Amino acid sequence: MLTNDQLSQWDRDTFFHPSTHLAQHARGESANRIIKTASGVYIEDRDGNRMLDAFAGLYCVNVGYGRPEIAEAIADQAKELAYYHSYVGHGTEASITLAKMVVDRAPANMSKVYFGLGGSDANETNIKLVWYINNVLGRPQKKKIISRWRGYHGSGLITGSLTGLGLFHAKFDLPLAGILHTEAPYYYRRPDLNMSEADFTAHCASELEAMIEREGADTIAAFIAEPLLGTGGIVPPPAGYWAAIQPILKKHDIILIADEVVTGFGRLGTMFGSAHYDIEPDIITIAKGLTSAYAPLSGSIISDKLWKVLEEGTDTYGPFGHGWTYSAHPIGAAAGVANLKLIDSLGLVDNAGITGAYLNTTMEAALADHPHVGEVRGEGMLCSVELVRDRDTRTFFDAGDKFAARVVAAMLKRGVIARAMPQGDIIGFAPPLCLTKSEADTIVSATVDALNEVSA
Amino acid sequence: MLTNDQLSQWDRDTFFHPSTHLAQHARGESANRIIKTASGVYIEDRDGNRMLDAFAGLYCVNVGYGRPEIAEAIADQAKELAYYHSYVGHGTEASITLAKMVVDRAPANMSKVYFGLGGSDANETNIKLVWYINNVLGRPQKKKIISRWRGYHGSGLITGSLTGLGLFHAKFDLPLAGILHTEAPYYYRRPDLNMSEADFTAHCASELEAMIEREGADTIAAFIAEPLLGTGGIVPPPAGYWAAIQPILKKHDIILIADEVVTGFGRLGTMFGSAHYDIEPDIITIAKGLTSAYAPLSGSIISDKLWKVLEEGTDTYGPFGHGWTYSAHPIGAAAGVANLKLIDSLGLVDNAGITGAYLNTTMEAALADHPHVGEVRGEGMLCSVELVRDRDTRTFFDAGDKFAARVVAAMLKRGVIARAMPQGDIIGFAPPLCLTKSEADTIVSATVDALNEVSA
Repeated sequence: MLTNDQLSQWDRDTFFHPSTHLAQHARGESANRIIKTASGVYIEDRDGNRMLDAFAGLYCVNVGYGRPEIAEAIADQAKELAYYHSYVGHGTEASITLAKMVVDRAPANMSKVYFGLGGSDANETNIKLVWYINNVLGRPQKKKIISRWRGYHGSGLITGSLTGLGLFHAKFDLPLAGILHTEAPYYYRRPDLNMSEADFTAHCASELEAMIEREGADTIAAFIAEPLLGTGGIVPPPAGYWAAIQPILKKHDIILIADEVVTGFGRLGTMFGSAHYDIEPDIITIAKGLTSAYAPLSGSIISDKLWKVLEEGTDTYGPFGHGWTYSAHPIGAAAGVANLKLIDSLGLVDNAGITGAYLNTTMEAALADHPHVGEVRGEGMLCSVELVRDRDTRTFFDAGDKFAARVVAAMLKRGVIARAMPQGDIIGFAPPLCLTKSEADTIVSATVDALNEVSA
Repeated sequence: MLTNDQLSQWDRDTFFHPSTHLAQHARGESANRIIKTASGVYIEDRDGNRMLDAFAGLYCVNVGYGRPEIAEAIADQAKELAYYHSYVGHGTEASITLAKMVVDRAPANMSKVYFGLGGSDANETNIKLVWYINNVLGRPQKKKIISRWRGYHGSGLITGSLTGLGLFHAKFDLPLAGILHTEAPYYYRRPDLNMSEADFTAHCASELEAMIEREGADTIAAFIAEPLLGTGGIVPPPAGYWAAIQPILKKHDIILIADEVVTGFGRLGTMFGSAHYDIEPDIITIAKGLTSAYAPLSGSIISDKLWKVLEEGTDTYGPFGHGWTYSAHPIGAAAGVANLKLIDSLGLVDNAGITGAYLNTTMEAALADHPHVGEVRGEGMLCSVELVRDRDTRTFFDAGDKFAARVVAAMLKRGVIARAMPQGDIIGFAPPLCLTKSEADTIVSATVDALNEVSA
């Protein structure tokens, strides 16, 4: 058996980790944590540390870790048929069944699902679809995409451009041309503290409309948005936001892509976030909760209206020239089928709503009066705590203080994993949807204790 | 149990297949083949048809189908730990072990491997790396990428731009700005039939050098190329090609990305195609053979020289802002470890060379005098047959004749799967590396019979 020291050395010598300080890691100045096993909401490393994962990996392990039903489905599929491609009409029982299950769970106007690997490549597919569709419709100049500041839509070149966070742009020459960003629907960071929530919603809508008019509606193909901002800070939209935004898009014939990578499959207490906020998208991006991360799989769900344009396109131009070798991979599809069955049979959508509300109200009650807590906010099984130097004047910490990162490190010492969100001092929580109230209490008390330690 | 009719209906109603004529498929005018199981070089559909897969899925199932060693590794990993992320220095025994195994097998100057999901996202990562590196090195204007006509590097927006095939550009508004294409190293399609192979190599080199001089070497960041053209037609380079190209890149300080998604892990009879052709890349793209497609996994192998620039970058600018949720997914990593062990223990790299040569010489002998065969070519376990209307005048068929597609359909009736390559009338063969001589004979005789049927 390999020793931890041996693995640790190989890790520093050969493994290029994502989202890591590469030099510090290679030099051995930062921890390498080798995860061994996991069950429910707990993960365990090779040093024997057991931690409550209050971020469900990267908000993806919706059903919790160690579910034998999914592991067995994967094992059976690996034995029977680990791989065949899905090009030119090929499929497997698992991939076809999953397509049917996804469309059955999606809003009524949805027709077909294209399967990819991760959320980034699904949004890549979506932009290709949008451009192709507008070419088929004879409006080749209608191609720009509007995203939002603080939106997260991936880490590729185009998808990182859609993302509206500086960390993903700097030194990568992003965003690329043709991708625009409008106001983040983030009431706590409203430009004027005196602005009411209704006024701020109206401000977001008028900023969007002004951008469309400035650029020309005939140049704008699509608007892409998460139902609520995820990696940008876990921020539910201000009241009335979606009711104000959607008519603008309809008026200017702009395709709405709902990026439900985080919100899909139960996280908000509804199967999709679109239902939660009365959003009527033309395309829905899915990943994470589709398989609870037990195997890589993403998807693009396409409305019946857009599908008809795609059919017209292939009748005119021939086969659709887009595909990944691993589109609808059988292992991912088998994991997805077992996962969606579990979400139903365990009642996890309801539990996300009920226990998620308990987590949010308990966190709010515990931190409402803390001098460094600006806001506690959330929806369903998502919660975040925004930390500030001074809550009365809404004075933020300097980025160099790394205040939230220090709180998260202090939580880890207490055996609870939360995430310091990448922009601002925001602690994010997105536990598995099977969280219990007792586990929620553990998360809240670790947060309070860690915050008090770092504030002292 | 689901009936085939039921699955077929769900398929047409809900499944958006890659690289498919969407309208014909939805209307039921094209076959949907539901694959059930597979073993060795054979796959079997739910109607009981057994077929010899002479394209190894999409040239990815290097070890052949149904290997219990890989299925068990996947099953064990799924049970122990299906997922944890690899951000911020996290890993698993499987992912770290695989990183070590990949670097051990790569050329000596290679240092680290970044894991993704598929070849497209690995090349997306590579372009991000190249741009970041040139920013760190203080040459922000050195960003254009040169690819080759008929190269295949993916199906995304940037990666589809790198791809030099019309099908992947038309109606998608590709290639995007900053991606240039130079001459395809495709001697059979040389512009002047009287040109010698040496002259054609010199022509390719001078076209590249002229492009660099026209654009300005200080604007060109990287050259990306497959060791031999894959999806562009399975075309080995003309003699001396890489010896002529590499000094030009070195002279102008242009990063060389070797896209080894097809050639990596044994297909040419060497572990990497770079070794086969004496290529010294700075970055190597891997996917397919890394796991033999048993689970999605890709990678970018980075040279020590470039890694040092990345370290300098994170020391200056902080953590590297790039990552996929499923980077180094444990299921893919476990499949990769088991797969690389099998490639070694079964001697598949050697068999690819030996039986691949047998397949190529047998195919050549069987078809050399056929009036519609322009060229039989290949390398290792890759072979292709280029079909022409008239071999003496090198007159091609009209695309509308779909000649190669008809031959491939006639082969399928004989139980052998080959691929009609997307541009030109070219039949492609890329069987699993475990192919036997007897199976090679089956492929050749099906090809001859089908070609004779369609030519009649």
